[in-house]
Amino acid sequence: MPVDLTELNAEELSARHEEYLKAYADLLNEGLSLDLTRGKPAPEQLDLSTGLLGALGEDDYRSADGTDCRNYGGPRGLAEIRELFAGFLQVPAEQLVAAGNSSLALMHDSLSYAVLDGVAGGPGPWRGTTDAPVAFLCPVPGYDRHFSLCDRFGIEMIPVPLNDDGPDMAVVEELVAADPRIKGMWCVPKYSNPTGATYSPEVVRRLATMETAAPDFRLFWDNAYAVHHLTDETVEIADVLALCAEAGNPDRPFVFGSTSKITLAGAGVAFFGSSPANVEWLLKRMSYRTIGPDKVNQLRHVRFLRDAEGLAAHMRRHRSIVAPKFEAVREVLEETLGGSGVAEWTRPKGGYFISLDVLDDCAARVVRLAKDAGIALTPAGATHPGGRDPRDRNIRLAPTFPTIEEVRGAVRGVATCVLLAATERLLEKVGSR
Amino acid sequence: MPVDLTELNAEELSARHEEYLKAYADLLNEGLSLDLTRGKPAPEQLDLSTGLLGALGEDDYRSADGTDCRNYGGPRGLAEIRELFAGFLQVPAEQLVAAGNSSLALMHDSLSYAVLDGVAGGPGPWRGTTDAPVAFLCPVPGYDRHFSLCDRFGIEMIPVPLNDDGPDMAVVEELVAADPRIKGMWCVPKYSNPTGATYSPEVVRRLATMETAAPDFRLFWDNAYAVHHLTDETVEIADVLALCAEAGNPDRPFVFGSTSKITLAGAGVAFFGSSPANVEWLLKRMSYRTIGPDKVNQLRHVRFLRDAEGLAAHMRRHRSIVAPKFEAVREVLEETLGGSGVAEWTRPKGGYFISLDVLDDCAARVVRLAKDAGIALTPAGATHPGGRDPRDRNIRLAPTFPTIEEVRGAVRGVATCVLLAATERLLEKVGSR
Repeated sequence: MPVDLTELNAEELSARHEEYLKAYADLLNEGLSLDLTRGKPAPEQLDLSTGLLGALGEDDYRSADGTDCRNYGGPRGLAEIRELFAGFLQVPAEQLVAAGNSSLALMHDSLSYAVLDGVAGGPGPWRGTTDAPVAFLCPVPGYDRHFSLCDRFGIEMIPVPLNDDGPDMAVVEELVAADPRIKGMWCVPKYSNPTGATYSPEVVRRLATMETAAPDFRLFWDNAYAVHHLTDETVEIADVLALCAEAGNPDRPFVFGSTSKITLAGAGVAFFGSSPANVEWLLKRMSYRTIGPDKVNQLRHVRFLRDAEGLAAHMRRHRSIVAPKFEAVREVLEETLGGSGVAEWTRPKGGYFISLDVLDDCAARVVRLAKDAGIALTPAGATHPGGRDPRDRNIRLAPTFPTIEEVRGAVRGVATCVLLAATERLLEKVGSR
Repeated sequence: MPVDLTELNAEELSARHEEYLKAYADLLNEGLSLDLTRGKPAPEQLDLSTGLLGALGEDDYRSADGTDCRNYGGPRGLAEIRELFAGFLQVPAEQLVAAGNSSLALMHDSLSYAVLDGVAGGPGPWRGTTDAPVAFLCPVPGYDRHFSLCDRFGIEMIPVPLNDDGPDMAVVEELVAADPRIKGMWCVPKYSNPTGATYSPEVVRRLATMETAAPDFRLFWDNAYAVHHLTDETVEIADVLALCAEAGNPDRPFVFGSTSKITLAGAGVAFFGSSPANVEWLLKRMSYRTIGPDKVNQLRHVRFLRDAEGLAAHMRRHRSIVAPKFEAVREVLEETLGGSGVAEWTRPKGGYFISLDVLDDCAARVVRLAKDAGIALTPAGATHPGGRDPRDRNIRLAPTFPTIEEVRGAVRGVATCVLLAATERLLEKVGSR
């Protein structure tokens, strides 16, 4: 029976605490070994792409334009794979580059080239100094690998709040208008990692039109979950490339996407889409690095996914595996923490994650308690730049990889840890009154 | 009948010149469209790897250690592909990293990380200044894409002569001992691009042991043609990694290799091998860029090539296609230019290229004449840093891609151009006496 822990007196809290300590002891005795850390597809999801392995017959190596995909060349990638993904990524096929594993690599390389050379039409390299580092806006909670890239290239991270409809635009607009050091911003516009938030059309419009003090400002538009729906509502976002072009900022967005969570993780195709000037900028730099991508694998993907409807049908099969796991997380959280007053969580309509907020100053403690009970969680703070969550309350749950039974068991265990950590904290507060 | 053009008098030269002009006019009338520019495998060579496309059965996605190759992870690459290539690349499997397309990408990234961060144990980033740029030694003639990488990262190139047994070590030793700006050197140690020269054991030993003014000097050891033999003699080179370690310079070599010219170009596996410290240095930087390589394609390669003997047998099949083309080049050159005194060429025992030296100040003219006759050659100068061949005499011939008939026709045409350009030049000299 849910009771709001934040409204209990010291005596009631102590009783609850005793109860949760006992539950935690039982949890420890279960000797679990469960993992909710990373957004990895489950083996059953990978099985959906078994047909990819044999998708190319012996004499099937020519693309539609007659290119022998087995040989060098073709830096943009095959026209047909770009055409297949153009609609989903909202980038015209001729402005899309198809590379190999992975969109993270394309983000890394774009950022690396910007640091080294500057961007197309920009005033110079994005090499900051210690006194005046280049800075990026980072909606939080966000994706730890984005933050690692900034760290790696010495880029300062400025957190901005992520709301249910996207980043808090009043904050964003004020910051980018005032500070020319702010050269970029990380965006996961659909089913964001980890909250599942989708940017509203109005937010996208404001990102496209806002005034930026830096003339070479770029949106790093990581559309990682473009087709990863969990409900009948196939959420759509506004066309950032078109809106930016209309607003006179055609070079503002770098759009990224990949098939890593569509077919096989790491063995797929990644995409970069942008303005013609930005595409030329990237291709020129890529030409030093490679004579062309793995076109055989691109052709394999074209044969296997076939067309937009084939891709959509494939994603519905993913949904049938993934959605019940998300539903299981919600059910268990509702049952164990609903009304407790010490936890809130998101109900994403797509993507790979659920974001769990616990009582302030409790996230690290929950992760530690869970670890000791054999449940691996993403480190507390990972969803914030530098691994520092100022309120120490956010935990990212990744339910795709484990089985549904494991998901239930893990979340049930996490809930016990959340309740125990909360009564610990609340008792401290009561004691210090 | 061969005649040494350099020994003719003006009258004789004029007669020859008239004859070659006529031959060139005939060549123009043939309306050829032939290409000897790039080292691309022929379709028949790619056909040898048809079995790769279907090498993985439906349930065949686990590596020997049980890893599901379809999912994220495994930054070093599959153990079994590293074991398969360890012997050929002379790098212990545990010091080998297996990535995706291509070794050029690994060279690019290694150089990029050195420029940005410096190398393992080094004093700092390889970012030169205009006054004191970082410099590389470049044996010439050499590979144009190596030179482009230096250009791209602002690295000065210092040419050193490439002899039949490798770079001129007296020159190399003097330069690296004196100049701490020299941080690296490009080496294609076996069947080099374009001369086919192989480094002698003594040259490798001297490269491993030489004193360098730069404490963070690196050999960029591009072993691109490790298994690409054209004769019964499977040429071997000394073990650079072991020799460097013995000499107390364990971190000196970065070894690169790939399957691009073994299986499918661009759809293969690339390798980086070095000391444990260098491998950790690279893996740490790669971890920002990718969560792991395309392990499915690595497993596909293991299944298809099987083992060292499978790989050697596969390369013998390549040889049976490629060697006759090289033989055709030699026959035609011998027949058309032998004894002419205006051309010399190499007789490589492996690799992808033949290096043709024409009369000084004639290479650009030959390439232009050939182009007008429909025969595409690598631009004159491409085998030298900055595209500047100081003697304007070196032309790289790449006979693998065309059919043997096309090779014959193209080389015959090139020979006509060589003779015409030579008599032009010799007549100028006679005239200016």
